[in-house]
Amino acid sequence: MAARPIYTTRALDTKSAARTGVVELPHGRVRTPVFMPVGTNATVKAVSKDSLAEIGFEIILANTYHLYLRPGHDLIREAGGLHGFTGWKGNFLTDSGGFQVFSLSKLRKITEEGVKFQSHIDGSSHFLSPELVVDIQTAFRSDIFMQLDVCTPWGADERDSLKALSLTTAWAGRSMKRWEETRGDFQGKLFGIVQGNFYKELRARSAAEILSLDTPGVAIGGLSVGEPFEVYAEMLAYTAGLLPDDKPRYVMGIGTPEYILEAVQNGIDMFDCVFPTRTARNGLLFTSYGPLSIKQARYTRDLGPADPECTCKVCREYSRAYLRHLYKNDEILFSMLASHHNLAFLHEFVRRIRYTIEDGTFMDYKREFLVKYRSKLQE
Amino acid sequence: MAARPIYTTRALDTKSAARTGVVELPHGRVRTPVFMPVGTNATVKAVSKDSLAEIGFEIILANTYHLYLRPGHDLIREAGGLHGFTGWKGNFLTDSGGFQVFSLSKLRKITEEGVKFQSHIDGSSHFLSPELVVDIQTAFRSDIFMQLDVCTPWGADERDSLKALSLTTAWAGRSMKRWEETRGDFQGKLFGIVQGNFYKELRARSAAEILSLDTPGVAIGGLSVGEPFEVYAEMLAYTAGLLPDDKPRYVMGIGTPEYILEAVQNGIDMFDCVFPTRTARNGLLFTSYGPLSIKQARYTRDLGPADPECTCKVCREYSRAYLRHLYKNDEILFSMLASHHNLAFLHEFVRRIRYTIEDGTFMDYKREFLVKYRSKLQE
Repeated sequence: MAARPIYTTRALDTKSAARTGVVELPHGRVRTPVFMPVGTNATVKAVSKDSLAEIGFEIILANTYHLYLRPGHDLIREAGGLHGFTGWKGNFLTDSGGFQVFSLSKLRKITEEGVKFQSHIDGSSHFLSPELVVDIQTAFRSDIFMQLDVCTPWGADERDSLKALSLTTAWAGRSMKRWEETRGDFQGKLFGIVQGNFYKELRARSAAEILSLDTPGVAIGGLSVGEPFEVYAEMLAYTAGLLPDDKPRYVMGIGTPEYILEAVQNGIDMFDCVFPTRTARNGLLFTSYGPLSIKQARYTRDLGPADPECTCKVCREYSRAYLRHLYKNDEILFSMLASHHNLAFLHEFVRRIRYTIEDGTFMDYKREFLVKYRSKLQE
Repeated sequence: MAARPIYTTRALDTKSAARTGVVELPHGRVRTPVFMPVGTNATVKAVSKDSLAEIGFEIILANTYHLYLRPGHDLIREAGGLHGFTGWKGNFLTDSGGFQVFSLSKLRKITEEGVKFQSHIDGSSHFLSPELVVDIQTAFRSDIFMQLDVCTPWGADERDSLKALSLTTAWAGRSMKRWEETRGDFQGKLFGIVQGNFYKELRARSAAEILSLDTPGVAIGGLSVGEPFEVYAEMLAYTAGLLPDDKPRYVMGIGTPEYILEAVQNGIDMFDCVFPTRTARNGLLFTSYGPLSIKQARYTRDLGPADPECTCKVCREYSRAYLRHLYKNDEILFSMLASHHNLAFLHEFVRRIRYTIEDGTFMDYKREFLVKYRSKLQE
């Protein structure tokens, strides 16, 4: 049976493939384009759920691989799913764990059946199948489920990329079957994932196969894995062009302004990345004039806000000098404030993207934003 | 000239020396007894100023020694004092730095003039005099200034304790002079410090000398420095009995429920300690049934709140299982939530102390609280 569409377009840009819309999910609507903060261990690092809500986020991520290993999906089910466990009232998208199995775990072995691996925490052996990954996300009561997929690195050859793609397709089918059989009245939505590395032929094949399953949403995986920006942009444009208009389109793992603008221009609706929070903890603050490293001595006596054009709580109430002082003293409050700012900055950035798409000025905004952002005139 | 009294008694307990009152300070009234969280580096670790205000704190501490070394009082003056630097709108009490010079710095040398020491951060040489310590706190625009004093450890002999006491008295006089000469229309209040180690004769002598200076408030230093509880209680009772009724009485460095109850019973109005926040970061949560170590495996699947009788935000919204999960994953959110809870627990505890004093039931409350607190029935 075909699922009821979850995506409605609101506005189409006339000068690019950019669009705005709404995704209807169990924990409320999500206005797109949308940046989704990553909460790997069922917490966005150093940011409370109340701050996330205050900034205005309608959806966040959590990581299936991490939460499956610790504390385990049985406990999360008992707690009432991720919402009960964490108290977050918006939507949760959970990834499939595939990417983490390949990047974090040891001694992994992929078969048709699934993937065997050793935990990066304690070396214990585990086996994830597409069906188990759906079951885990059912235990989480995730609003968006991602299928188990096989991601290939930048530089993988065509043969390996084809193998990964074929497995991903097979697993997408099994995921869809399991999801349809087990969801009952639960409304979490499954997304299939298009792979194919940087081979257009493979991307086209993957897209055709995944779309034939009619999952409620579609993701593009395997981009932003180390390739140059131009290669990313080209493969993104090509693959996005293969996706239908009536489903939400999600590019996994991008979170810098440049990558987001490129994705939006090509009609992408959703994106996520740890970058804004990870980089915040390392002292990098987003500003309208480019990233600012609070480590630099020039900010020691700078009583201005992190970004003079930002209206977030951190920019309204704290100075660069205070932020630098906190950073130099390894104070937890630095991570709290810097993460809050970077997320608020991206949230406002994406809100303006939506506004300019509806206004017909998105491409002007993109150009002007990038000129300023690349000017590196942080004062 | 005698300063206008800053303290007004509201209620006296009939069964102990406990009392409630109000201290009037530049950034608003402080209801006493009061527990003051410690914000060493101009931040209470892992707790935002907004959370502190939400809990209900009217005064917090910052450390003169740390802030003098980094970022320096000139920068803080430029930023508009500690309030401008941090955004905290309540009162600041700043300690004198004396305790930290003795506990953290290297190669310190005490003379009549002041104390020479090497920074624990970079080994640089510094000299603090009583006058400079007042000037630093003026730059901070602190609401309560503490005089530079000399603290002796548990076990110091009478001769060393007398020397420390005499220097403390001399420095109190010089602090008072500097404060009176330089404060202009600024309303920060200076507190003298009674020393004398665990020798009653020396405590009596110190109290007489310090009180003769008529500082707006008086502190008892050199308690809770490693001595057994009974020794603390005896010296506290003795010293508190020497203090006048018309000034706020502050015992420095205490922050467990047992120590606070003992202090209140003896008529103490103010206390501070890093204990609630430091111990929180290490996984210890205050509960009505005694401290709870979230490290214990028994809490893995415990979906109840940290303390079933606590009404703080953390206990209303998060489970022990989630807190333990965050702790096990070294998530910053654990430090944020645990610190918030411990501070909220102590704040509510002290609020109830005030209520029971005014109600005439303080000694009953003390007894009942301790029976339950020592029961260690955390479930």
